[in-house]
Amino acid sequence: MRDEFYMQLALDKAWEYQGLTYPNPAVGAVVTLEGNILAIEAHQKAGSSHAEVLALLSAYETLSNRSVDFDPCDSHKAHAFLLTLPKDFFAQCTIYVTLEPCSHEGKTPSCASLLQSLALRRVVIGTEDPIEGHGGGMKRLGNASVGVLKEACQALIESFLLWQKRAFVLFKLAQTTNGRIGGGYLSSQASLTHVHQLREVCDTLLIGGNTVREDRPTLDCRFIQAQAPDVKIYTKEDNFDRDIPLFTVEKRRVEIIHTLDFLEQPSFVLVEGGEGMLNALKEKIDWMLIYQTPKLSTNNLTYNTTMNLQFLHQDKKDVDLMIWSKNIGH
Amino acid sequence: MRDEFYMQLALDKAWEYQGLTYPNPAVGAVVTLEGNILAIEAHQKAGSSHAEVLALLSAYETLSNRSVDFDPCDSHKAHAFLLTLPKDFFAQCTIYVTLEPCSHEGKTPSCASLLQSLALRRVVIGTEDPIEGHGGGMKRLGNASVGVLKEACQALIESFLLWQKRAFVLFKLAQTTNGRIGGGYLSSQASLTHVHQLREVCDTLLIGGNTVREDRPTLDCRFIQAQAPDVKIYTKEDNFDRDIPLFTVEKRRVEIIHTLDFLEQPSFVLVEGGEGMLNALKEKIDWMLIYQTPKLSTNNLTYNTTMNLQFLHQDKKDVDLMIWSKNIGH
Repeated sequence: MRDEFYMQLALDKAWEYQGLTYPNPAVGAVVTLEGNILAIEAHQKAGSSHAEVLALLSAYETLSNRSVDFDPCDSHKAHAFLLTLPKDFFAQCTIYVTLEPCSHEGKTPSCASLLQSLALRRVVIGTEDPIEGHGGGMKRLGNASVGVLKEACQALIESFLLWQKRAFVLFKLAQTTNGRIGGGYLSSQASLTHVHQLREVCDTLLIGGNTVREDRPTLDCRFIQAQAPDVKIYTKEDNFDRDIPLFTVEKRRVEIIHTLDFLEQPSFVLVEGGEGMLNALKEKIDWMLIYQTPKLSTNNLTYNTTMNLQFLHQDKKDVDLMIWSKNIGH
Repeated sequence: MRDEFYMQLALDKAWEYQGLTYPNPAVGAVVTLEGNILAIEAHQKAGSSHAEVLALLSAYETLSNRSVDFDPCDSHKAHAFLLTLPKDFFAQCTIYVTLEPCSHEGKTPSCASLLQSLALRRVVIGTEDPIEGHGGGMKRLGNASVGVLKEACQALIESFLLWQKRAFVLFKLAQTTNGRIGGGYLSSQASLTHVHQLREVCDTLLIGGNTVREDRPTLDCRFIQAQAPDVKIYTKEDNFDRDIPLFTVEKRRVEIIHTLDFLEQPSFVLVEGGEGMLNALKEKIDWMLIYQTPKLSTNNLTYNTTMNLQFLHQDKKDVDLMIWSKNIGH
């Protein structure tokens, strides 16, 4: 199979963790040996092992038929372990990474220098690290091939590029297949859990006044027992019932705001709302994340807006479809 | 990688030709050599080579680095050619097929006896051929493994099972991502071409009276220069303007019908319509095929109905999403 095939597997894996790696980029990696796929892994969470490291550990387990006796997400242990392997352990292997391996030396060696030490036969990279000062990984690797599925690998990290310079605004919507929203819990438990995971990692959960008044929501992360996000309510009036759960979640700040100036700050802003918020934020929305349930409904909660999208990625989430798309204007 | 990984590749490929293989089932096949993927192919059209044959030819081309000098879809030439190869040519290969290879001996040898002659190391089958009298392929193969991704392989051929005993009713809909229909050409050229391919193979294109009166459609197969399908108009009244293109397409029969009794006949019925037809046919629809465009729209052509779906397969069609789903009641 051609390089594009393996890179696509790395991309698909990386998309499973889109947003969840904040403030890190989503990255996927595949390790092959003579065309055989040994590992398909992705970076899962900031502070945890990078995609390359997880893929190499998993490839080690496949090749040796043994399990490592530490948490693969512990990057210190993972790096240290990989460096104890015989120098030619991965000598015939190829690694595919959607993003140029990091060259930053910190508490652990950089992925670029790890790959250099492990001396794989080939390193195939989707796209260069676009952040100034982050590059250099490729130079260190010398013979890496770059630019396989480049556009798709760039689209994967667009969120990362945006949240470095201003707010990355992700508008989340749950709808039936005929575009009806609201009406209680639309989505599968897997979709709801995913929303809670996004809420946990975002800096701000942005909602509209109507959501507070009409839905009286909690907007916490109870399905994953995590800390609820701070909430900003974008509204003209401040006439909310302070007894609803939203305001009483522990360690959560709720702020009433009248402008969207805070979006100029580098951050990850998750928006949950309906037609009103969609129209109010139209110019500010970077991506839409639509959970589409397998149902046609007669409820009358349609949403009216004009927006041109570009589909970035789609996948099942239990019975639902999860569709990532980019706002490309109207 | 495990068998499931390769079978999924065969499944995804087969879905590209869902419906288009009528009256044959959609079937996908993958050939591997020591874990390496040599070929991923699918049956494309009735009368053309089966998936196994196309995959073996493609694997031959990969292994020999040569091209065959005939049309791989010519099953006579393909079978004959494969039988001229050295007896051990595929001896180390594994083939994954979503459906039990056919055992029917006709103008060409059956796929089961072809595979028997080629003596592959392993034959892995998704699901048994459910049609009475069609089985026996597996017995002939002796050591085949059966049941890998069985449910998904069964879902793939549900259309085939239905159109053998009565009409398989596929309701096609093009919509924006917020569920708006109509409004001219919604979908990409690739989606429109796909619709014309489905129109070419179906027995009947079923539409409602309103479509004729309001849209004045042609409903031909011009994008693929193929014969337009016969049309049935399901309507209470027969008050159509006979000068519209629909009625003047060459070699096309147009019939006005007042009952749906014809759905009892084994056949493939493609339905194109809006809310009216969707509600009129609700109990009869087997599958929905939704072309979803990357757009949110304010046009007011929503469609109101209740239906529970099961998503069967989703894929991109150029910029659009193509979503196959099953009607599981309301």
